[in-house]
Amino acid sequence: MVAGGAVLCAGDRIAWVGTDGAWPEALAPGPGCEVLDAAGGVITAGLVECHTHIVFAGSRAGEFARRLAGEDYAEILRQGGGILGTVRHTRAASDGELRALARARLESLLSRGVTTVEVKSGYGLDAETELRILRVVRDLDREGPWDLVPTFLGAHTVPAERRSDRGRYVDEVVEEMLPRVVGEGLARFCDVFCEREAFSAAESRRILTRARDLGLGLKVHAEQITRAGGAALAAELGATSADHLERVEAADVEALAGAGVTAVLLPGAMLFLRSAAPPARALRGAGVRVAVSTDWNPGTSPTPDLLLMGTLGCLAMGLTLEEALAGITAHAARAVGLEGDRGQVRIGARADLAVFRVTDWRELFYALGHRPASAVVKDGRIVFRSDGPS
Amino acid sequence: MVAGGAVLCAGDRIAWVGTDGAWPEALAPGPGCEVLDAAGGVITAGLVECHTHIVFAGSRAGEFARRLAGEDYAEILRQGGGILGTVRHTRAASDGELRALARARLESLLSRGVTTVEVKSGYGLDAETELRILRVVRDLDREGPWDLVPTFLGAHTVPAERRSDRGRYVDEVVEEMLPRVVGEGLARFCDVFCEREAFSAAESRRILTRARDLGLGLKVHAEQITRAGGAALAAELGATSADHLERVEAADVEALAGAGVTAVLLPGAMLFLRSAAPPARALRGAGVRVAVSTDWNPGTSPTPDLLLMGTLGCLAMGLTLEEALAGITAHAARAVGLEGDRGQVRIGARADLAVFRVTDWRELFYALGHRPASAVVKDGRIVFRSDGPS
Repeated sequence: MVAGGAVLCAGDRIAWVGTDGAWPEALAPGPGCEVLDAAGGVITAGLVECHTHIVFAGSRAGEFARRLAGEDYAEILRQGGGILGTVRHTRAASDGELRALARARLESLLSRGVTTVEVKSGYGLDAETELRILRVVRDLDREGPWDLVPTFLGAHTVPAERRSDRGRYVDEVVEEMLPRVVGEGLARFCDVFCEREAFSAAESRRILTRARDLGLGLKVHAEQITRAGGAALAAELGATSADHLERVEAADVEALAGAGVTAVLLPGAMLFLRSAAPPARALRGAGVRVAVSTDWNPGTSPTPDLLLMGTLGCLAMGLTLEEALAGITAHAARAVGLEGDRGQVRIGARADLAVFRVTDWRELFYALGHRPASAVVKDGRIVFRSDGPS
Repeated sequence: MVAGGAVLCAGDRIAWVGTDGAWPEALAPGPGCEVLDAAGGVITAGLVECHTHIVFAGSRAGEFARRLAGEDYAEILRQGGGILGTVRHTRAASDGELRALARARLESLLSRGVTTVEVKSGYGLDAETELRILRVVRDLDREGPWDLVPTFLGAHTVPAERRSDRGRYVDEVVEEMLPRVVGEGLARFCDVFCEREAFSAAESRRILTRARDLGLGLKVHAEQITRAGGAALAAELGATSADHLERVEAADVEALAGAGVTAVLLPGAMLFLRSAAPPARALRGAGVRVAVSTDWNPGTSPTPDLLLMGTLGCLAMGLTLEEALAGITAHAARAVGLEGDRGQVRIGARADLAVFRVTDWRELFYALGHRPASAVVKDGRIVFRSDGPS
């Protein structure tokens, strides 16, 4: 933390960081320089949102009401609701509709200081729709101002039409979807939902191994509801991140630490599903880097509020405030393979910055449900400003 | 709920509610009429925030960090921190500073659809500062556009300089502060923090009885941390509301129901203090009307997000979505003595409305940490508009 600090950007890079005015003469801002006055506020690296599912159509507010009334998710699923409803709505939506829906969500994230967003497919569950979703991500990345990190999650769940022949669906993911996704250059990562209700560790290993062979980085939805072996698999395959981890045990924590896998904790899903907390202290104690994310999705974490996730990470998972901040900046960047380039305010890093209307960085997490971002800089340019209420 | 609905306002009242265009000829909007297109969104009554402590100075983010690191609140208090720190900062702040701080918080609430806000004193703890705080509330109410309901909470805690002679402080509240507050017409309610660490049931009874004799309505901070007798006292004295209730037992629930006391549940404080949930289902089962509020204060619930409180009321306390909506509209109005006039979209009620960019009212609570209000109407006039991201 630098009090009374300033950041100089040149092109898309941070050129200097220090006390306001104390820059070397050679770097002094010239007349053509755009000046952003943080007005006594707090400047952080542009926030990194490292786990989202924001390309989807349809609302699941009605399902939320049913679950609150005590109805079982398995029963909702059997009736074609839950994730299968989202898949139905997403398949039926046009590219333009999907793009408009995802764009509004990205704008919501940007207005909260987020400049880099990982986005997963996974509501198509057939080759055409999975590719359509990833092309929407590609188009929105090109439009900017954000950077998007695309992840192929064809193995999100088994689609309704393959429930009686799940092996065939895994074949499709491995033999058809993955090569086409890679062929079109549509993903940087492959993710699998390794879970009793989704894909076994063996199925997950087959999919992820193929993805690795095709040059993709790996991510695993691991041990969220049951201990299905995703964390050990992530360690075995050298995945970039293992996400959720509510049900990890000591051996999993050791394996993740040993393999240098970044843990991504998702407090929104934990709150929404009223599930147990992942052992954040054990993970940190073992040296695992912990990222924090919204998990923005329509079923289990419909939220754009990354700062609130940091607060919940502290209150419900035992993170410290410093860990919460690292979790949505440097460690989140590591979870999407961009460590060093993002999530840090240091010379040479990308000039992505967020300016917040708070006087103490700890207030970012201390307040609940506020939106204090007053400006956002992406690649050295001011791309968002707000003088409205927090 | 009316699908494809419209609301007509005349002066500060709702003149008609029904299907768009189906109004009687005599009420048809004329050329001078201001038109607000809800654009397929959801219209509710202006939200009512029925329990706040928003006139204060100083941040307690540092204390939050200490508590997360495991430090005891009692120890923080002994060192002059906690509420005593807020009292010190508030006493030291000028009227103008207090007004600016509270105004920014009211603007934050307004931007979330809130049109009526209860505001308590309680960070002065001496006659001069308590009166100063209530005059700030009076001034901000006059400036508007919101309506403020002022509550005198001199009995929030015993100030540092009276810790060795608490009886003298209770005397001051009863004999000096209350008559002056009522003499200047500065409060509609008197509240007491009835709690082992604050005021006993006997002290609370003395203060509240005097307040009632002077014509104030009554509120009680009851059974938050220990079962100190506040709920029974609220029932005995016919209080308008009993707030918190984390520790109520069956007899308290029956007493509140029998006396028609509105329960105010405060999920933010529950989350922040990691305390047990109040028995919302038992309260509703006994017929108690349940309101939901932010409890916005710097120590235990620093949040402007009333919708998030509704969501937490559902997820952590067991409210239904319908109860969450009633909790921040009709029942919240009842908790501040304004039932009928506020919190309902019906002919004759005050023309306070909130328009939200959602297509299903349940999405208000289903999403976490969003800010979907696109327009706010107070007394028949548009006082807030936003076309920014949620």
